[in-house]
Amino acid sequence: MDKVLQKYNNDLKARPMAEMLSDPGRFDSFSCRLGGLLMDYSRVHIDEAAKTALLERVHTRGVLKARDRLFAGDAVNLTEKRPALHMLLRGNCVEQAQRPKDAERALQSVKDMLDVAGALHEGRLSGERPAAVTDIIHIGIGGSLLGTQLIHEALGSRAGSVPRLHFLGSVDAHAREALLPSLDPRTTIMVAASKSFTTGDTLLHARHVRDWLAQSLDDAEVARRLFAVTGADQKAVAFGIPAENVFYLPDWVGGRYSLWSAVSLSAAASMGPKAFKGLLAGAADMDRHFLEAEPADNMPILMGLIGVWHRNVCGFGSWAVFPYDSRLRLLHSHLQQVIMESNGKAVTTDGSPCDHATSPVVFGESGTEAQHSVFQALHQGTDVVPVNFVGVIRPSHGDTEAHSELLANMLAQATALACGRSSSETLEQMKSDGVSGAEDLLPHRVFHGNRPSEVLMLDELTPENLGRLLALYEHKVFVESALWDINAFDQWGVELGKQLAPEVQSGLAGEAVDLPGLSGLLGYIRARS
Amino acid sequence: MDKVLQKYNNDLKARPMAEMLSDPGRFDSFSCRLGGLLMDYSRVHIDEAAKTALLERVHTRGVLKARDRLFAGDAVNLTEKRPALHMLLRGNCVEQAQRPKDAERALQSVKDMLDVAGALHEGRLSGERPAAVTDIIHIGIGGSLLGTQLIHEALGSRAGSVPRLHFLGSVDAHAREALLPSLDPRTTIMVAASKSFTTGDTLLHARHVRDWLAQSLDDAEVARRLFAVTGADQKAVAFGIPAENVFYLPDWVGGRYSLWSAVSLSAAASMGPKAFKGLLAGAADMDRHFLEAEPADNMPILMGLIGVWHRNVCGFGSWAVFPYDSRLRLLHSHLQQVIMESNGKAVTTDGSPCDHATSPVVFGESGTEAQHSVFQALHQGTDVVPVNFVGVIRPSHGDTEAHSELLANMLAQATALACGRSSSETLEQMKSDGVSGAEDLLPHRVFHGNRPSEVLMLDELTPENLGRLLALYEHKVFVESALWDINAFDQWGVELGKQLAPEVQSGLAGEAVDLPGLSGLLGYIRARS
Repeated sequence: MDKVLQKYNNDLKARPMAEMLSDPGRFDSFSCRLGGLLMDYSRVHIDEAAKTALLERVHTRGVLKARDRLFAGDAVNLTEKRPALHMLLRGNCVEQAQRPKDAERALQSVKDMLDVAGALHEGRLSGERPAAVTDIIHIGIGGSLLGTQLIHEALGSRAGSVPRLHFLGSVDAHAREALLPSLDPRTTIMVAASKSFTTGDTLLHARHVRDWLAQSLDDAEVARRLFAVTGADQKAVAFGIPAENVFYLPDWVGGRYSLWSAVSLSAAASMGPKAFKGLLAGAADMDRHFLEAEPADNMPILMGLIGVWHRNVCGFGSWAVFPYDSRLRLLHSHLQQVIMESNGKAVTTDGSPCDHATSPVVFGESGTEAQHSVFQALHQGTDVVPVNFVGVIRPSHGDTEAHSELLANMLAQATALACGRSSSETLEQMKSDGVSGAEDLLPHRVFHGNRPSEVLMLDELTPENLGRLLALYEHKVFVESALWDINAFDQWGVELGKQLAPEVQSGLAGEAVDLPGLSGLLGYIRARS
Repeated sequence: MDKVLQKYNNDLKARPMAEMLSDPGRFDSFSCRLGGLLMDYSRVHIDEAAKTALLERVHTRGVLKARDRLFAGDAVNLTEKRPALHMLLRGNCVEQAQRPKDAERALQSVKDMLDVAGALHEGRLSGERPAAVTDIIHIGIGGSLLGTQLIHEALGSRAGSVPRLHFLGSVDAHAREALLPSLDPRTTIMVAASKSFTTGDTLLHARHVRDWLAQSLDDAEVARRLFAVTGADQKAVAFGIPAENVFYLPDWVGGRYSLWSAVSLSAAASMGPKAFKGLLAGAADMDRHFLEAEPADNMPILMGLIGVWHRNVCGFGSWAVFPYDSRLRLLHSHLQQVIMESNGKAVTTDGSPCDHATSPVVFGESGTEAQHSVFQALHQGTDVVPVNFVGVIRPSHGDTEAHSELLANMLAQATALACGRSSSETLEQMKSDGVSGAEDLLPHRVFHGNRPSEVLMLDELTPENLGRLLALYEHKVFVESALWDINAFDQWGVELGKQLAPEVQSGLAGEAVDLPGLSGLLGYIRARS
């Protein structure tokens, strides 16, 4: 996409990363920090000159202007004519924004949600007739599921403590039918999250859960146990959810950014309102940093530039994230949506076809497990995959042996990817190990290295640091979208499948349908149904 | 990699998939079946001529010879000088194989494992002093974890029933410390799976679980609750596991193929021995099919050829699997290892560098959830991702409405990817929906289609069909490795990180270490520890 950057990349190929990393000043020059969050990008295959050239793109491609438009509340979601102001939910750094007229309502909704979450965190429904709550069924999909699930796993209640959270996403009854018999309707509540309150998957499960409650409880007791988070409050009320249990989700908070909203009721109940407020505060801290820090010290800007370097200059098609902390094991699921739904586009903001690649494929797994599944390909496969490692310095347990092994493994992987192991080192190693046939084995055991990674270190997995981390990724994605000149906030690509599904359903029921290539398969399925 | 195939691909680009799918004979010509498993590859962008050209590669690249060497027990794992005979564990189709001398021991071990699993399935430890068992802690990583976890989720006990399974993989104490306080040591057993019985992650957790049992039980009662699956029985016994509780894992069963072995003790306890035997029988059925069916009707051969078509002819870098059944939600995790660890190689069997791409990046998610996260990029991103959909015709619940929606969504996605929605159709749709500014929006709402997928349909999620499906993927990977002339059975790429970790650990403890680029980061971490 950019001949100047391409030239830097070609020149850099002649300089092994191991050599660049041997510079004692490398870490200081290629890392930056915000509160308890460090980003070490010294294992990205760039030098000062390439970094300077990348930083120039911030100005030539209008990244700062795009950022300022975002925070000013402009309609940056051009195709839907909406601002993207999820930052408003987490702090005061959008003071100058043209506030949407429903801003106060949305902020009040988060406050009200936290009141309910506070009671649930203590295991009860408040009100005139207090009732114990042991289990919460959260129903939602996509943005109404992934973020909530992630922050609950990261910060929420642990095995054996209440409230226990259960999630229903896909329109698949197996999960629901397996779950309900293990729960007590008297101590279970339901939270249904859907911006439109028309999401088929969510409403289907919600109806069944409501009916399941109604088998054991009278109407008033059922109603108390139903909660909704939606932009369509009338529809939720018509469903049977009391108006006071309906929390508002404004249209300027996209689904994949809605974990900062009342959508996180279940997670806030699990971690407690104080922790949820800490999460918001950490994200607000990253918002301010993104707005105020100089580009050369600005984490989201640097990360976005590195993303474009890897995707468009180096031509890497995928991107992986490996949290070395089991509490963050769902990070890749959340980031798959944040990245691939935001930037999986092929037309620029003015509707012309992109002449450059956009979103990479995103995958991940928690470490050390990933080392025993995908790392073979990352070290010795034909394609290079840029990697983000996420580590935590101080664990919340006392097993220092396990924690030291965990961190050491993460840093060893980053080092191995970057530095590799040359033919001569490998041969020497094999000979000292007494391996027979070492020469024949040699090509299979060499590591070429020069495989890039960024290391993100959290001092502790506090709500504040997690807030910083998640907001960092959101803004990185926005920076990439600005560099690519695409709209990160729409998702027209999800429409066609939804539109075709009802006709396929008729076909499954035996009606004649006009969908290319389905008649044979539909016949096969019907014959076996 | 192949100019003839490349020419077919160039010619086919001029023929939209929608047109090819409108041929009423397409489904019959581009699908094949084995028992309750159908593979519909009509949405792969090939025609009869391209398929014929691909099938010629089976002969010119020696795929059948490679297959026969595999089943004959030759040392197909050249760098480790071992056969790969996991098929031996699941049936009689390797009768002609040169049986390893420990074949009977391995087969007996599965039988013994099933006896123990049978008792556990009924909630007890058998023996002179029967004891109730409600919980099983399975400790293992990589191949000693992913397959077992998958088949347990697919076929095992449901929420609320016993035995409950808990998995510890990564060397991260958070998961263990959260788990143990919720369990009763009197009714909990441990299964540690490690071929070498030296895997650090596994042994660290195993020691802690053993010690936790010992806090409440006497030595004899602790010992009864410890089980191991390993190739190093002496080490397991030295650890304190009674010899009769140690099951044998031979070195001709690679970790990522070990779900067919005694490694699946926990899962077999959960699903019951009969179901586990069904799984083996289904896999054996696929083994026979792979050995006996003509290439043009041979599922693993067809799937492997399609893999190479997508990877090397079309140049697609990744591959995704979306099971539309929440019971299969871990399929992508298992397949990440099976595919990326097997074929993430860059040298051919004779040690020369590959001049072609090998393993794609593998990712996935269960549907319909995936539709709300990654599908935007699949429909409208700049890169094409070939997709496998996996559906189940008859669910195990009675919610026909949910199931029909689920299947309809899957088929609608496959259709949308293949056929897209043209500019004129999209404009017409928007106008009939009364969208304002339709012309400006048009480029954002068009779907170009021609994005390939294969649909796998299981009549039911029986053990037999799951066995067929998992063996199909194993053999597909083997076919690809034969076409690429690489060794699918070693994993030297996991060695370097393991080798560096102890030195990094010394660095974390404050010792001076000689690892490029780590001193700054180690100092940062130490200052905050």
